[in-house]
Amino acid sequence: MNRRMILYMPLQILKLEALLMLLPMGVSFFYRERSAWSFLYCAIGTLAFAFLGTAILRPAIKTIYAKEGFVIVALSWVLVSAVGALPFVISGEIPSYVDALFETVSGFTTTGASILRDVEAMSRGLLFWRSFTHWLGGMGILTFFLAVGNMADGPIHIMRAEMPGPIVGKFVPRAKDTAKILYIIYIVFTVAEILLLLAGGMPLFEASTHAMGTAGTGGFGVLNTSIASYSPYLQWVITVFMLLFGVNFNIYFLLLIRKFRAAAASSEMWAYLGIFAGATAVLCIDLKSVYPSFSELLRNSAFQVSSIMTTTGYSTADFAKWPEMSKAVLLFLMVVGACAGSTGGGLKVSRLLILAKAVYREFKKLLHPRSVTVLRLEGKALDESVVSNTLIYFVIYSVLTGVIFLVVCLDRFNLETAISSTIACFNNIGPAFNAAGPTKNYADFSVLSKLTLSAAMLLGRLEIFPLLLAVFPVTWIKK
Amino acid sequence: MNRRMILYMPLQILKLEALLMLLPMGVSFFYRERSAWSFLYCAIGTLAFAFLGTAILRPAIKTIYAKEGFVIVALSWVLVSAVGALPFVISGEIPSYVDALFETVSGFTTTGASILRDVEAMSRGLLFWRSFTHWLGGMGILTFFLAVGNMADGPIHIMRAEMPGPIVGKFVPRAKDTAKILYIIYIVFTVAEILLLLAGGMPLFEASTHAMGTAGTGGFGVLNTSIASYSPYLQWVITVFMLLFGVNFNIYFLLLIRKFRAAAASSEMWAYLGIFAGATAVLCIDLKSVYPSFSELLRNSAFQVSSIMTTTGYSTADFAKWPEMSKAVLLFLMVVGACAGSTGGGLKVSRLLILAKAVYREFKKLLHPRSVTVLRLEGKALDESVVSNTLIYFVIYSVLTGVIFLVVCLDRFNLETAISSTIACFNNIGPAFNAAGPTKNYADFSVLSKLTLSAAMLLGRLEIFPLLLAVFPVTWIKK
Repeated sequence: MNRRMILYMPLQILKLEALLMLLPMGVSFFYRERSAWSFLYCAIGTLAFAFLGTAILRPAIKTIYAKEGFVIVALSWVLVSAVGALPFVISGEIPSYVDALFETVSGFTTTGASILRDVEAMSRGLLFWRSFTHWLGGMGILTFFLAVGNMADGPIHIMRAEMPGPIVGKFVPRAKDTAKILYIIYIVFTVAEILLLLAGGMPLFEASTHAMGTAGTGGFGVLNTSIASYSPYLQWVITVFMLLFGVNFNIYFLLLIRKFRAAAASSEMWAYLGIFAGATAVLCIDLKSVYPSFSELLRNSAFQVSSIMTTTGYSTADFAKWPEMSKAVLLFLMVVGACAGSTGGGLKVSRLLILAKAVYREFKKLLHPRSVTVLRLEGKALDESVVSNTLIYFVIYSVLTGVIFLVVCLDRFNLETAISSTIACFNNIGPAFNAAGPTKNYADFSVLSKLTLSAAMLLGRLEIFPLLLAVFPVTWIKK
Repeated sequence: MNRRMILYMPLQILKLEALLMLLPMGVSFFYRERSAWSFLYCAIGTLAFAFLGTAILRPAIKTIYAKEGFVIVALSWVLVSAVGALPFVISGEIPSYVDALFETVSGFTTTGASILRDVEAMSRGLLFWRSFTHWLGGMGILTFFLAVGNMADGPIHIMRAEMPGPIVGKFVPRAKDTAKILYIIYIVFTVAEILLLLAGGMPLFEASTHAMGTAGTGGFGVLNTSIASYSPYLQWVITVFMLLFGVNFNIYFLLLIRKFRAAAASSEMWAYLGIFAGATAVLCIDLKSVYPSFSELLRNSAFQVSSIMTTTGYSTADFAKWPEMSKAVLLFLMVVGACAGSTGGGLKVSRLLILAKAVYREFKKLLHPRSVTVLRLEGKALDESVVSNTLIYFVIYSVLTGVIFLVVCLDRFNLETAISSTIACFNNIGPAFNAAGPTKNYADFSVLSKLTLSAAMLLGRLEIFPLLLAVFPVTWIKK
């Protein structure tokens, strides 16, 4: 275990975060807000701390393995969230540190659950920072570091630990170049959305924050009504972009290198679009009496399905007041989530495909005990270790859902609130039902629940293993 | 596929069921109730039908394999439930066939969910039949047939398909003898409970029906207040016997052959008792303000934990009105269930142990990718096929929970009712929360929900695979 690197790397990431805070600081200065200073103080303090730390810790050997990769990612995300919460507290706009931490974790993990009762009362600099954390967290802050930094050994272990999905592939031989390509695609799509929102008459500040929230599949808005007050055109633009950011970025890379046939053959993408279409159809049937005009019915259904399935969490309607069937479908979509290798959360469609194939094989095995079959996904044979890892992932995922739910139950909200807020935070959606519905917020949850749900958001974003392995005693034992 | 045997065997089971109906008929005659005739008509009709069928179908080859075992068990349970519902309808005491079917499936699967608004209005013969279905279903009606019948080939495939748990062992070389030993232990325990209940002043009819309900971990009572009106002594007797019937019968066999050390070494039993003690402690803390006296607090907590964890479903209190934390613990226990090889339902403690070990191994594997470990349970190495089967069982179990929940949501009850009734039926508990709470019943559920929940109860009791394999197209394809 390379213990120095485990502390050294997260400090490097902190330096990057401090530099990135200059962006929201600029926004604050532009709008002549006092919050600009809180970014400046926080950035200077963080830089000083991180430079001091890295000077002391400079490791002789920089080589890392899978083990270190998990711990570095876990520790970086915790530190980045802890520091990212400071501007909210220093500025006084979120006085409680626990609340600020919840908000920041919710930002970086692209959850979008908020403790703010009145978003519109916040300064623009801090609103920009909130949305910017979505954007960074979506594709991954360590991946960003890999793209812009200069790390020699073992970056693939870091990318593997940070990127969602059962199989993390490299587009090109070097992890650094893969990270660069990912961020270039990501930036192009984000800018495209900003331009289309501007074309629909949305002001620049709102267009850029909403685009960052869409890109990271986060869900923080800047208006109390989320997306409900915008025109149908703007709502459709966001619907389509949420869907696009929920697709595996591998597909875009394949399109980029003109492998159109390979891109069109992706079974995960078709399953993802199929679930989207099916769920939208069910909602349209269930909500027929709620929306009299068909265009309104389709728009609201498609928007909410897209928003929940990609784990973004924007809303155009108070879906917590919808009939039980629609709510059940949304709850189901929260768990399904988006594609692997996208910015979305949840279980991921490709995991579900692997689970379905494993179940089918087990049925055949029970009937013909000596049959042997190799599972295939996207045209490739699946390694048995990936299959069993996926099965075990599902088990841990379910058990953790139960544990988090139990802790949230201590708050004595009703069961619907406790279950839906657990699922909404763990799968990085944001708004849930009942007391945590889209028109409500998480302000009234206890400190224990806020901390538990913050942990749930981190567990969900990092797909459980890095965080659990970081606190798993065996990790720290020397062989 | 031996298609003749697939139809022949269930008809044999129907003959047995018809003969067993003479017992409740005797009870009805004793109390001079008109319902006696409905048992007689039903028994005669069923016997005629079954003898005709077996005469036509008599198979030349009686050999069966795993495949046939699953289908025979699935079909037998469906037929036995369909016929077992007839006396309720013929007597006119439950006029709707769907309701009668729900009640009978709930009986045989030892769920104990009822559509009866007023249990005390039923005739004693039918109440006895209800409780008797619990007793038969608990240890298994096909297992009973194996014990008393004379089947030459392949009974082990039937036992495997009917007995709950990830691993089904034989005590002795012949499956028939194993079935006999199981039933002898079962009868001794049931009689012991009847005697202890009689000693506490419970009338014979109530003592025998409650003992059968406890033995099968069923939960049908004969009073509208379930167990609440009985003395503390009687409640404690039932608490202890529920716990005893939730233990793996393997333990009792080990005690019988004086292998005390092996019995005491069972990790499943200790985990089961540990969960019982832990959950009781949590309830005691959470309910401190509800029950002023400690003895009352302990008795109610222990009773409900024992009842829910063993998936019996008796109640001494309206736990649907308890605080959310206690309800969450009960919901959690519903899923955990009792030990494998007991009469209880749920996931089973040994499955959870296997899952926990598999998760632990995966953690070590992520840290040291080349490590190889064999999992062990109860001192024996676990076959990898058992591990992957358990993982896949968990996946199917979770997905089915979601699907059943979605269908029940169509009823437009609130989410708490839909989720808890799904879990309570699928895990064979019975009472749930809210509109399906212990003082309520399933009468107001729609026909679709009643049929779906009936299917859920069968899926839960037979542990999914037999029923799904029976409708799985590949099962019916000739090689």
